Amino acid sequence: MEINIAEAHHRIKNFILRTPLLTEDYINGFLENTTFFKCENLQKIHAFKARGAANALSKLDKSLLKNGVATHSSGNHGQALAWAAKIFSSYAYVVMPSSAPKTKIEAVHYWGGEITFCEPTLQAREETLQQIVERTGAIFIPPYNHWDIIEGQGTCAYEIFQEDLEPDYLLTPVGGGGLLSGTALAARQYSPKTKVIGCEPKNADDAYQSFNAGKLIPVGAANTIADGLRTSLGDITFEVICKYVHDILTVTEEEIIDAWRWITFHLKVIIEPSCAVPVAVLLKHKDMFKQKRVAVILTGGNVDAEKLRLILP
Amino acid sequence: MEINIAEAHHRIKNFILRTPLLTEDYINGFLENTTFFKCENLQKIHAFKARGAANALSKLDKSLLKNGVATHSSGNHGQALAWAAKIFSSYAYVVMPSSAPKTKIEAVHYWGGEITFCEPTLQAREETLQQIVERTGAIFIPPYNHWDIIEGQGTCAYEIFQEDLEPDYLLTPVGGGGLLSGTALAARQYSPKTKVIGCEPKNADDAYQSFNAGKLIPVGAANTIADGLRTSLGDITFEVICKYVHDILTVTEEEIIDAWRWITFHLKVIIEPSCAVPVAVLLKHKDMFKQKRVAVILTGGNVDAEKLRLILP
Repeated sequence: MEINIAEAHHRIKNFILRTPLLTEDYINGFLENTTFFKCENLQKIHAFKARGAANALSKLDKSLLKNGVATHSSGNHGQALAWAAKIFSSYAYVVMPSSAPKTKIEAVHYWGGEITFCEPTLQAREETLQQIVERTGAIFIPPYNHWDIIEGQGTCAYEIFQEDLEPDYLLTPVGGGGLLSGTALAARQYSPKTKVIGCEPKNADDAYQSFNAGKLIPVGAANTIADGLRTSLGDITFEVICKYVHDILTVTEEEIIDAWRWITFHLKVIIEPSCAVPVAVLLKHKDMFKQKRVAVILTGGNVDAEKLRLILP
Repeated sequence: MEINIAEAHHRIKNFILRTPLLTEDYINGFLENTTFFKCENLQKIHAFKARGAANALSKLDKSLLKNGVATHSSGNHGQALAWAAKIFSSYAYVVMPSSAPKTKIEAVHYWGGEITFCEPTLQAREETLQQIVERTGAIFIPPYNHWDIIEGQGTCAYEIFQEDLEPDYLLTPVGGGGLLSGTALAARQYSPKTKVIGCEPKNADDAYQSFNAGKLIPVGAANTIADGLRTSLGDITFEVICKYVHDILTVTEEEIIDAWRWITFHLKVIIEPSCAVPVAVLLKHKDMFKQKRVAVILTGGNVDAEKLRLILP
């Protein structure tokens, strides 16, 4: 599969935001390095997922867009698809588990997406989606295991590399692996000296296990606060990650919550707990990153207020 | 007094950050306008005060810098002065009331400032400062009622105007009036069509009263959650504000807290309650700003975690 991240960026750049890349004196002093945070929590729909969805829809023929697009999602991809469908004059069908957070349901509605609720199992989600696709002719846009999505997510790292920071390391969380794959492919082409590291909760460490075993090992029930990272790699993202990612590092739930508290108060931004996973890796492996230039993608900011309570003293 | 905000910006731009100017779909949809938020909570020391302090010190002769600089402050100005003193190879003496928040004390220490505690009265602060100045020969840098400070704070609006947004309105909070004065002077020169509005808590409405009475009416004990806005105008800031500010609008404590919650969750940034004051004005006078282009300066992000609890459900 040929992907071209620069062209993807050119296609979507007028729809997405060029998010700020922040650096902070206290954080740099504490870590004894220079760390840049790419704030995708300040992106459209407050998550990098807007990039992949916009890219996928920008590549669809108009005749296909008119039947709509569809996906199943309990998270930001559903929101991103509804948003992108609005921009590209299409229509989004989003299958959501009945247990999905209220804020995410509201966001899909806000962007005009049509929600179909189902039981919170992968089987129920896939079957419900299949019925909708058959009934409407809508195009299925998967959340991560799809080249157009990977290409779109790669535009985030592409923007980082355009700033001439020449980071030694670039850290992203890994859930289904769309962002990590796109990031690794972007680094390979636009900043080959940058080592890309995937960061994962120990409680959802399928990418860590798969990467080290050299075969796809899906996770069972993932019990982590980092709700964006509970999914497992797909065959495409697994292959890209094995080839181009430098390493996968894991952190505990306690490390995630500590890092979440730390980064929120020092960087002054609201982020999802998933974003705290690479920050926890930075704090845990301080020596590895000492005196280095590090970039971290803060993936999103869609967090329930009640959950924010966890990081307050 | 001649001030030149463009020159001030040129002098300090390598020390401060060009903070992001954010705009958000949901917020614009709700307000039925286009609002831009200048994020000084992401500035050095997480407050616009870095601008004024850097400007004041950049104008001091090296022979004066060697004796140090001094101020009294319970808030961000002390931190800003300690930070600027470090940059300009000077030394900062900061008189703080013994009741000052722990985080702000720590921040002054972090930047190498020397703290002298005193009783929490204006008289005790001024007397303690006077003793330090006499003993050390340090130069007193006031928090707002000083042309170099006003000139420095004006660089924030200057950066907004450089983006060619041509805002119809520019809203800032008003406490001592340094930021509001600098903003009004910047607008007068670089964007004369922009109406500058000062936003003030009803419980600390000395600027509102002074502006409308045409004479300086200091506030007594100001009981507002917006801790950065408890001070009263000085003679210089009062004069500038009377001449060049379009209007001063006030909001209640309840309106401030509601706006604080609203903006934090929709914009995804951590801000001090003072920043919520102009946001509360936007929400209260929605009709006035409908279909307009509005810029709001979010002044700082130094808030205690315990206080953040107030905006969680």
